[in-house]
Amino acid sequence: MFKKVLVANRGEIAVRIIRSLKEMGIKTVAIYSTADRDSLHVQLADEAVCVGSASPSNSYLNIKNILAAAVGTGAEAIHPGYGFLSESAEFAKMCAECGICFIGPKAETIDKMGNKEHARQTMMANDVPVTPGSKSFINSVQEAKDLAAKIGYPVLLKAAAGGGGKGIRQVKDSSEMEMALSSAQSEAKTNFGDDRMYMEKVMQNVKHIEVQIFRDQYGNCVYFPERDCSLQRNKQKVIEESVCDLITDEERQHLGEIATRAAQAADYVNTGTIEFLMDQDHNFYFMEMNTRIQVEHTVTEMVTGVDLVKAQIQVAAGEKLPFKQENLKARGHAIECRINSENPANNFMPSVGKIDYLYLPIGNPGMRIDTALYQGEKISPFYDSMIAKVVSYGETRQEAIAKMKRLLSEMVIRGIVTNQAFHLALLEDEGFKQGAFTNTYLEQHFLPKWKERMNEAVSA
Amino acid sequence: MFKKVLVANRGEIAVRIIRSLKEMGIKTVAIYSTADRDSLHVQLADEAVCVGSASPSNSYLNIKNILAAAVGTGAEAIHPGYGFLSESAEFAKMCAECGICFIGPKAETIDKMGNKEHARQTMMANDVPVTPGSKSFINSVQEAKDLAAKIGYPVLLKAAAGGGGKGIRQVKDSSEMEMALSSAQSEAKTNFGDDRMYMEKVMQNVKHIEVQIFRDQYGNCVYFPERDCSLQRNKQKVIEESVCDLITDEERQHLGEIATRAAQAADYVNTGTIEFLMDQDHNFYFMEMNTRIQVEHTVTEMVTGVDLVKAQIQVAAGEKLPFKQENLKARGHAIECRINSENPANNFMPSVGKIDYLYLPIGNPGMRIDTALYQGEKISPFYDSMIAKVVSYGETRQEAIAKMKRLLSEMVIRGIVTNQAFHLALLEDEGFKQGAFTNTYLEQHFLPKWKERMNEAVSA
Repeated sequence: MFKKVLVANRGEIAVRIIRSLKEMGIKTVAIYSTADRDSLHVQLADEAVCVGSASPSNSYLNIKNILAAAVGTGAEAIHPGYGFLSESAEFAKMCAECGICFIGPKAETIDKMGNKEHARQTMMANDVPVTPGSKSFINSVQEAKDLAAKIGYPVLLKAAAGGGGKGIRQVKDSSEMEMALSSAQSEAKTNFGDDRMYMEKVMQNVKHIEVQIFRDQYGNCVYFPERDCSLQRNKQKVIEESVCDLITDEERQHLGEIATRAAQAADYVNTGTIEFLMDQDHNFYFMEMNTRIQVEHTVTEMVTGVDLVKAQIQVAAGEKLPFKQENLKARGHAIECRINSENPANNFMPSVGKIDYLYLPIGNPGMRIDTALYQGEKISPFYDSMIAKVVSYGETRQEAIAKMKRLLSEMVIRGIVTNQAFHLALLEDEGFKQGAFTNTYLEQHFLPKWKERMNEAVSA
Repeated sequence: MFKKVLVANRGEIAVRIIRSLKEMGIKTVAIYSTADRDSLHVQLADEAVCVGSASPSNSYLNIKNILAAAVGTGAEAIHPGYGFLSESAEFAKMCAECGICFIGPKAETIDKMGNKEHARQTMMANDVPVTPGSKSFINSVQEAKDLAAKIGYPVLLKAAAGGGGKGIRQVKDSSEMEMALSSAQSEAKTNFGDDRMYMEKVMQNVKHIEVQIFRDQYGNCVYFPERDCSLQRNKQKVIEESVCDLITDEERQHLGEIATRAAQAADYVNTGTIEFLMDQDHNFYFMEMNTRIQVEHTVTEMVTGVDLVKAQIQVAAGEKLPFKQENLKARGHAIECRINSENPANNFMPSVGKIDYLYLPIGNPGMRIDTALYQGEKISPFYDSMIAKVVSYGETRQEAIAKMKRLLSEMVIRGIVTNQAFHLALLEDEGFKQGAFTNTYLEQHFLPKWKERMNEAVSA
C-alpha cells in the first residue's frame, strides 16, 4: 500500500479523501492556492504545498506545480477527486511519466471516454444502447440540419471534449442551428481547446439514471445500485438519490449488466459512472461515462455500506476489488442535497462572505454531511459554489425525505446566502415526493412555481 | 400514532429523541430547568416548558411539574430518555393515572426489575444464570460476613434500589465489612430512600457484556447483537462496542436466548437491556436489567441499521415490533467514546465553561456524533458531565478504531476541558487494541500507566 498520497483538489472532496487516507494509515499531502491557505483540507493534511494563485489555471489545474509538489514531498500516488484535473488524460499520463500512480483509470481510457463521440462509438460496438444521433462529428451547418430533420427536433449539439455543461446547445428548430453550432463551437474551443461537435436527439420525458461501476486490474468488475440524478438546473445536479424506486430488481440487474459491459468494453480500471437516460418505457440510453469519483457517490455508500474512496486507493495500489457483486444490494434509500453558496431568489447568483455562524445537525442514525465548512471560514469567489452535501438515509424513500427535511430545517449557515430554503421547498413539492420527475422537471415545472410563490411572498 | 410527545430529559438524549419524533411527524414538547433556557433541546422542540430551577430535584425530577407540562401542552406520551425519571416506577404510574403514555415498560416491571434482588430472584426462577450471592436481603453485619466467607471474597454490597454506581461497595475481607455495609446503606438511603442491601461475589477477570431486547405488547420479542461495555471508570462506561469479537455466533445466539427468556419472564414491554458478566470460559451471569434506552444504544443502531428510539415510540403506541430477529444480525463493528466535560489529569474533575469554539468532524462514511453541543453554549455544573457521544463504524473492529482515532484527532472543543486526549491514549493502548480487556482493565491497568506517562510529560 502507498505510504503517502497527494490529494490534487480542494473543498469537501479533498477533505473526504484525506479522511479515508488517514483511516488507512497513509500520510497525506494537500495542495492549495493562495486563496485557500486557511482551508480545512490544508489543516487536516499532514503536509500542504501551495501550488499557485487563486485562479484555478494557476493552481488546481497547474500540472507542473502539482507534480513538483508530489515529487518534492515523496508522494507515491495522486488522488484527483472530481473536477479540476480528474478527467485530464494529459495529467494522468504525466503522473505515469513521473512514476506517480494516478488514482483513476489509465490515461488512454480517460482520453477515449472523454471524447464523447468516441465513447458513443465504443458503446454502439458493444451493444450498449445509445440515443439517436450523429455517427461521427458534425462538419457543417447543412449536415447538422439534415441529421436533425432525420432524427427529429429538438436536438443537442455537444462538444466532443465537453463536460460540466460547457459546449452544449439545445436546438429546437432549423432556424436556430447556425447560431447554436457556432456559439457551442466557440465555447468548446475556449474551454477544451477542441471544437469538434456531435449531435444527439433530445430525449423527452426521461430520467437521468446512472450506474457506478468498479473494475480492478485483474478484470473483476461490479456495478452498484443505480442513482436517480434527474433533478438538475443548468445541467448541474441538485438532488441525487439511490435507488430509483421506479426501477424493478430485474431492470436494475439488466442495467447493471449493460454498465458492466460498457466498463469491460472500455477496459476500465478503478471506479467510474455510466450515465443513462431512461424513457417512460424504461428503455435505457447511454449518455456518457464519467471517469472519476462523482459528487453523488455518497448516496451509493449509504445504501451499500462501502467506502468507495478507500476502494479506489486499494485498487490503484494493485489490490483486488474489496467487495463482491452479491454484497452490493441496496439496503434502504439515500438522498443527497447539494448546498450551494448562491442566492436562488437572485437567479442563483453565487454568494461570498465569511461564515459567521455554523450549526451542522449531526447525530441520530442515517445522516452524513460532507463539507469543508467551519465557523470563521471565508467563502471566496474563485471556485465552485457547492459548499456542503447533506445526505440522509432511511429504510424507505419517505423516511429519507423526512430525515432530510429535519436536517435542512436544523442547519444554520450565517454570513452567506445558500440554497437551503430552496431545497426545503423542493422536498415539499408533490412532484418530488411522488418521485416520477424527469430531468426537465426542476427547471420547467418546479422553478416557475417556486418563483411565483417567492414573488407573492415579497409583495404580500 | 401520537400527535404530540413530551421529552422528559435534557442534553444529547433529549435532542436524539426530539429528532426521531420530528422525522415521524410528531410534535415535540421539551422541558427545561432555568439553567437550560438556551439548550439545544429547547431550541429544537416545537414547544418548551420550564419545569423548575437548576437542581434536578426541582426540575428534571419534578414529577408534578412535568406532568403539568404534559397535560398543559396536550402531549399524549412522555419519553423519559435515560437517567432522571426513566426508571421511576412512580413516574410511570402517575403518567398512566394522568392518561399519558409512558414510553417504556409498565410501572410494575420497572419496580420489579429496579429492585436488584427481586430481579435476581426472577432470573433464578427462569433458569437465567446469576452470580453467586445472597438469596435475599442482608439483615446484619454477621450475616454478611458469614455469606461472604461462604462464596469467597471479594464481594459486592449492592443497594436493592441502586443504579449509577450509587450504594455499591466492594469488600475485600471481613475487617472491611461493617464500615462498608453502613456507608453503602447510608448512601442508598440518601439516594433512593431505601437501604436494603444484597451481596454478590465479585467476579474476577470478567467482561461486562449486555444484550438489548425489544418486546411488543403482543409478546413478540427480539434480541440485538451484544455490546461489550467492559471499559469503565468509577462504574461508569467509558467506551462501548458492538459486537464483542471474542464471542462466537453460537454463543451470541445462546446469550440472546437467555436475554429473551429474561425479558419474557419479566413480562417486559418496549426496549431494555440485560447486563451480564462473562468469565474467561464464556459463562454468562445475569447482573441487572436496565428498563430504558441506554446511552450506548448508538452502537447497536450502527451495526443493525435500526432506529431504536423510533421503535420505542412505535411500540408504545401499540404497533408491532418493526423488525424481525433474522434481520438483526450485526454488520460490521461500532465503537462509542463518551466525551465528558472533565479533566482526566486532575482526577477527572468536572469542567464547566462556555464553548468558545467547536469543530465536530462530520462527513465520510461510518460516523455519528450525538451531542447537544453548539458553539457559544455554556456548560453548567448542574448535570452529568457527558457532553457528546462519538461513534465510529467500520467493517471490522480495526477499521472502527482507525476511524475513531481520526474523528477524535479532528474534533475541537475549546472553552472547557474534556477527556478527548484520554480517549485517544486509550485507543492507542495495546490491551485495548487486542480487545480481551476485562471490566477492571481501565482502572487497574490502563489508568496507572496513563498517569505515569502524564507525570513524565509534566516533569520533562
